[in-house]
Amino acid sequence: MTMHLNAFLMGVGHHEAAWRHPLTEPRHVTDLRHFQELATIAERGKLDSVFLADGLALLGNVRHNALGGFEPLTLLAALAAVTDHIGLIATVSTTYNEPFHVARKFASLDHISGGRAGWNIVTSSGAAEARNFGRERPAHGERYQRAEEFLHVATALWDSWEPGAVLTDRGSGVYADTSHIRPIEHVGDHFRVQGPLNIQRSPQGRPLLVQAGSSQDGKEFAAKWAEAVFTAQQTLGDAQEFYADLKGRLPAYGRQPHELKILPGISPVIGGTEREARRLEKELEELIVPAYGLGQLSTMLGVDLTGLPLDGPLPDVEADPDGQQSRVKLIKDLAGRDGLTIRQVIAKLAGGRGHWVVVGTPEQIADQLQEWYENGAADGFNVMPPYLPGGLTDFVEQVVPELQVRGLFRKEYGERTLRERYGLGLAVAS
Amino acid sequence: MTMHLNAFLMGVGHHEAAWRHPLTEPRHVTDLRHFQELATIAERGKLDSVFLADGLALLGNVRHNALGGFEPLTLLAALAAVTDHIGLIATVSTTYNEPFHVARKFASLDHISGGRAGWNIVTSSGAAEARNFGRERPAHGERYQRAEEFLHVATALWDSWEPGAVLTDRGSGVYADTSHIRPIEHVGDHFRVQGPLNIQRSPQGRPLLVQAGSSQDGKEFAAKWAEAVFTAQQTLGDAQEFYADLKGRLPAYGRQPHELKILPGISPVIGGTEREARRLEKELEELIVPAYGLGQLSTMLGVDLTGLPLDGPLPDVEADPDGQQSRVKLIKDLAGRDGLTIRQVIAKLAGGRGHWVVVGTPEQIADQLQEWYENGAADGFNVMPPYLPGGLTDFVEQVVPELQVRGLFRKEYGERTLRERYGLGLAVAS
Repeated sequence: MTMHLNAFLMGVGHHEAAWRHPLTEPRHVTDLRHFQELATIAERGKLDSVFLADGLALLGNVRHNALGGFEPLTLLAALAAVTDHIGLIATVSTTYNEPFHVARKFASLDHISGGRAGWNIVTSSGAAEARNFGRERPAHGERYQRAEEFLHVATALWDSWEPGAVLTDRGSGVYADTSHIRPIEHVGDHFRVQGPLNIQRSPQGRPLLVQAGSSQDGKEFAAKWAEAVFTAQQTLGDAQEFYADLKGRLPAYGRQPHELKILPGISPVIGGTEREARRLEKELEELIVPAYGLGQLSTMLGVDLTGLPLDGPLPDVEADPDGQQSRVKLIKDLAGRDGLTIRQVIAKLAGGRGHWVVVGTPEQIADQLQEWYENGAADGFNVMPPYLPGGLTDFVEQVVPELQVRGLFRKEYGERTLRERYGLGLAVAS
Repeated sequence: MTMHLNAFLMGVGHHEAAWRHPLTEPRHVTDLRHFQELATIAERGKLDSVFLADGLALLGNVRHNALGGFEPLTLLAALAAVTDHIGLIATVSTTYNEPFHVARKFASLDHISGGRAGWNIVTSSGAAEARNFGRERPAHGERYQRAEEFLHVATALWDSWEPGAVLTDRGSGVYADTSHIRPIEHVGDHFRVQGPLNIQRSPQGRPLLVQAGSSQDGKEFAAKWAEAVFTAQQTLGDAQEFYADLKGRLPAYGRQPHELKILPGISPVIGGTEREARRLEKELEELIVPAYGLGQLSTMLGVDLTGLPLDGPLPDVEADPDGQQSRVKLIKDLAGRDGLTIRQVIAKLAGGRGHWVVVGTPEQIADQLQEWYENGAADGFNVMPPYLPGGLTDFVEQVVPELQVRGLFRKEYGERTLRERYGLGLAVAS
């Protein structure tokens, strides 16, 4: 088993000013061919999977960024049709969806892709999202209670067609053994679902389950359900602490450490020399629209910073108990560590919204990945290229071979399904 | 303008016994390549579109039929990736979905396909569907009230990004003119939705709107919203009556007759000679599992017929006011016209669940289509091949050329989008 590498696809790049850089074509955020190219590049690099984040409202100020792209499940289905190996991970919320629809769509994507579907489970903390569904913003605990029941229902639906239920006996006219296709009769606090699912058991049985919450509730949820976790970590120490914490929670759920893979995000700014890499970083930084960054920072902190001097210090803010507390802590640590001004914090966050940014040559970046991978900080990485497609191409053509030479990454695809690639068995009905 | 032809794709065929016939491969109901082949065949025939029906429960007895296939939107996104011209029409329910999700997914499919998305709007009358969403089966009128508000919200969301809103001005850092991307602030009986949509205006502005309800509420809804209507009609007279009725309702909504196209379903059983066609019909009929047909008939009538003698008459049943009344009337007319036994009714319905079945040579089938098209019964047809892919191949290779020779069908694709192909302008925000 080598490290896992996931390509986090985001419009024309993760840097918030990527759309202004001449290396990108901002009209591509709604161009299928752009995403087909990205998936193909990732597959050429033998990456585990591609991943699409999601929110259920127009988040961020579209005046200054190339927002408003595809819905993840439809896009990944279209990417499945032009790829053969790469995993396809879509973000879908448990707060504003029905488990029957979600279980069915992932089963459909899994059939379409021949066993390559993954689900990044989110609980949608935003107020703007709630207002698109006639709802008040739900409290943190309530969101996780609903998510818990949602997963129970979804897994029961995936198991409602047992392996071997389909017989296809043309002679006798028996297509399926209906004693192995059963209602789930779920009755709970949030859902009543009869079942069975109206789609046959898919190649993986269920999608790879991915999660990214870093609150206490989020970590417990991950320890129980998740098979891969995306996380934002700025330093080796913090990443090791998170890694040990989360792996340590698994035994309480009867799970082994290898059953959950931890993938910190990394935005690699790659240059042939360190100077070239620094130049690219600076070019992107100079294209930042401060008003946009301030809006993003305000949203992440849950506090409106409009009007504060950009060259003054970040004010001390209290984390909203229903918001993204771990992200607030990360930003405060970041600002405090080096005594950054608001403008400097904005620049630090512009590359990856709080994720780890590594600037350097392919060897330097491989060194950093190796250090984290070999020192209990990561089972792999969520790769967030600053601009696309070039940033992904550089990673695949320059960093991946370096990792392969060091024996840290696969040279060929072996396993048939995404779950198998993550070292998990096919889910079998209990 | 020539007739419109839509390929209604259904597993390995519309005949309920198709999966038992040696011309099909029943495992293909969950095989993407099978559907890619079907879409490619339809595109080779210059058909307007392919269409997927849908239900939100496992409907029909899977013991005796190849059920449990793909979810429509994910499948059509995957088909978009391997086709260039053909329209892609997905069925989605307004009763068990949220307008924000639905508007967004169709906009996404429309971007993915370059302007080829269509939405068949259904209101989900079934009790089994309600039970997968913790709901009681809603009354007929309530379903249509919700559908009406749903369409208001969806169209407002599609229009929430006005044409020209995206500027992509890299120099000044202005991506979009936010005065043209606006909240919709909808507050109604069923929905409260703030908006705007989180995806940019799509090539068509909105999908082609399709509908198939034949109740009074259904016809009024169609007259107001639909741009194409699928309908089940057994005779020229009935089809003419339906056509005149529905077209006659348009002026009340300020619409012209050409703005709504009426497409009766037809299941063409094609043979090189009439005898060959009759033989294929008979082969399929002999593969019918009576228990399956009886279950289907019971569901369509809303009455459990189990235990009644197959060779006795169809009992007189009252249409459930919340069920599919028009389908009940069609079946009663069918049985009454020729004094059919239950077994004979089952055989009549097995080919297309109440749709028109035409058995004969390509010329004979073209004659029938021409007669309906030229005599005020149809603007085109919803083609339901009894078995797949062969039945679609035969239609495309044998019936379509006959229609082309007669000047009744296009020889090449002209228009860029599906809406344009249906003679409709691009939807422009008001």
